[in-house]
Amino acid sequence: MSTTPAPFTAADYRARMARAAHLAAQAGLAGVLVAPGPDLVHLTGYRPTATTERLTVLVLREGRDPVLVVPTLEAPDAEQAPGAAALRLRDWTDGHDPYAVTAPLLTSGGRFGVSDNTWALHLLGLQHALPASSYVSLTEALPMLRAVKDAFELERLAAAGAAADAAYEEILKVPFAGRKETEVAADLAALLLRFGHSQVDFTVVGSGPNGANPHHEAGDRTISAGDMVVLDFGGLKHGYGSDTSRTVHVGEPSPAEQHIHDVVREAQQAGFAAVLPGVACQEVDRAAREIIDEAGYGDLFIHRTGHGIGVTTHEPPYMIEGEEQPLVPGMCFSVEPGIYLPGRFGVRIEDIVTVTDDGGRRLNNTDHAMAIVS
Amino acid sequence: MSTTPAPFTAADYRARMARAAHLAAQAGLAGVLVAPGPDLVHLTGYRPTATTERLTVLVLREGRDPVLVVPTLEAPDAEQAPGAAALRLRDWTDGHDPYAVTAPLLTSGGRFGVSDNTWALHLLGLQHALPASSYVSLTEALPMLRAVKDAFELERLAAAGAAADAAYEEILKVPFAGRKETEVAADLAALLLRFGHSQVDFTVVGSGPNGANPHHEAGDRTISAGDMVVLDFGGLKHGYGSDTSRTVHVGEPSPAEQHIHDVVREAQQAGFAAVLPGVACQEVDRAAREIIDEAGYGDLFIHRTGHGIGVTTHEPPYMIEGEEQPLVPGMCFSVEPGIYLPGRFGVRIEDIVTVTDDGGRRLNNTDHAMAIVS
Repeated sequence: MSTTPAPFTAADYRARMARAAHLAAQAGLAGVLVAPGPDLVHLTGYRPTATTERLTVLVLREGRDPVLVVPTLEAPDAEQAPGAAALRLRDWTDGHDPYAVTAPLLTSGGRFGVSDNTWALHLLGLQHALPASSYVSLTEALPMLRAVKDAFELERLAAAGAAADAAYEEILKVPFAGRKETEVAADLAALLLRFGHSQVDFTVVGSGPNGANPHHEAGDRTISAGDMVVLDFGGLKHGYGSDTSRTVHVGEPSPAEQHIHDVVREAQQAGFAAVLPGVACQEVDRAAREIIDEAGYGDLFIHRTGHGIGVTTHEPPYMIEGEEQPLVPGMCFSVEPGIYLPGRFGVRIEDIVTVTDDGGRRLNNTDHAMAIVS
Repeated sequence: MSTTPAPFTAADYRARMARAAHLAAQAGLAGVLVAPGPDLVHLTGYRPTATTERLTVLVLREGRDPVLVVPTLEAPDAEQAPGAAALRLRDWTDGHDPYAVTAPLLTSGGRFGVSDNTWALHLLGLQHALPASSYVSLTEALPMLRAVKDAFELERLAAAGAAADAAYEEILKVPFAGRKETEVAADLAALLLRFGHSQVDFTVVGSGPNGANPHHEAGDRTISAGDMVVLDFGGLKHGYGSDTSRTVHVGEPSPAEQHIHDVVREAQQAGFAAVLPGVACQEVDRAAREIIDEAGYGDLFIHRTGHGIGVTTHEPPYMIEGEEQPLVPGMCFSVEPGIYLPGRFGVRIEDIVTVTDDGGRRLNNTDHAMAIVS
């Protein structure tokens, strides 16, 4: 079991906020507005108890101190945030207009990046308070803000991947046949927690036809001999995400099932092999998709090949046709091709991969061969 | 223990969607756009596994069939939603522009209500795709959309309140002194689940000085004799929320502590007594606040008096100065005045109240007297 990494300090958060403000200025933005969510966690370590109709927003502008606008009754929590020492708090009280409080911190007429998951309620409030300003999502304006991980983040992502791998090795030992998907999913969740996850975000157990629905979680279906079963699970360990998929079979697979699995395995390998600094993200998608297309299953690979991962499990960079962003060492993302046969079964194989100076390095390292479970 | 109420049907959801479209038209809106969250649950019963960067949005327009725009890989889940039979699905695939898919469903130049918690990413995408249209938050445009509960919803809210009351009666029997706040909070969570909650949303245990922070959840502080302890807890039962607060004391309170508690108790009663159809929401806030002001603690009551409750625990109507919306039978909201003495302790008493034809009815009915715990 890995040791707990040292927590990030106020100095770490100060540096991240300064970098974000600088990148924003370079991109022609007057500043960055960050609501509670993964961007705020990355930049300040602050995670309010709940995201609500009460405005909390971090305002970053190059050359000025970062300001966190918070409801008065949440100010004591914000003061305890790991990055609080690098922040100035500006609180507002119920009954006052939080947008009028925020507006003087911005420049009328400026263009601001806003975190993707900021509530429309708040964006509309700001648009109303500052009609001459304009707004753009952070994913569009600064897609790479959190995409390149530093050594300390990579250490956490590797630890999360190793924990997910350990959970996979253990789940192969539990009985599948005769149990409901939800029971195997509960086993997976318990294993993730046992191997150090603080939070389980998803435990997909898609048996038989349920595996053909990529976003099926786990249901009441009883798994039986002969079933293909997609497992896709992850969560947070030390604040960073895991996300891995393997497809297993209850008893021996048919030649047709084995063939589909072989194609996906080859596609995953091809996607991984395409990872190299300077290569566009879409090339990873193309490399995996080409294998599946050539095998004649192109119409059954109905999602992109991958997504970035960090303090949350879906973030830039996306491995998708049209994404021309070049890969950069330190990026972390999934490579997860799949084939889904409606009404029959699905196969998906997924590793988290980080970009190194000369290729890719997998943060998941369990066997890709189709495991036989009982 | 109450029995499980009959589930809402596609006909129920169809009626709710038609009503929302009609209210929108009456308010001068061209339609309503609803992202995943409480509004979507209320209108369709659909709750995606996760809210992500992939657009899911319900489009409601009077005189047209409701359309749910969903990512292709989540379409199988959406088809299973309780209200799916009342919906037309329009799916979009990774790599395509979901806003271009949605735009033809709207009217260029029209004004649309958008659910408060729609991601800024999506609102900006729609604003870009339809620059001549305008948008307003549902809370601003149709604040009363979910505010008046029907008999079936009231039945669920009453059941959730009764379960929270049962949890409170039981928590009075556990030891407080010598245990950490988090341990009592875990007891509260287990009790809510035991009494039928499917989900626990918050279990505030604010002992001594922590009680003076209204949004403190529960921490490592060890509770000791002489502590005032604020308990504030709730979650979902049969899809509807509970939220109640009581303030207890470990051993006998001092006269000063008893006095503060008496003031809050009187304020809560005054707020409740102000509830009557036709009275403005702000009058409930004023009635409670007047008692606390007159006792000299006005500066220490640092939040509004209440919030609506339904499929989520913070929604309109808000009991706050400036809210002139008249009360209507069937509305449900909290009445929860408090006094917070920084560094010392806090007191809050909260009941969920529903408006009847001739006043208010409490959905929480445990004793308001300061309970003595051990």
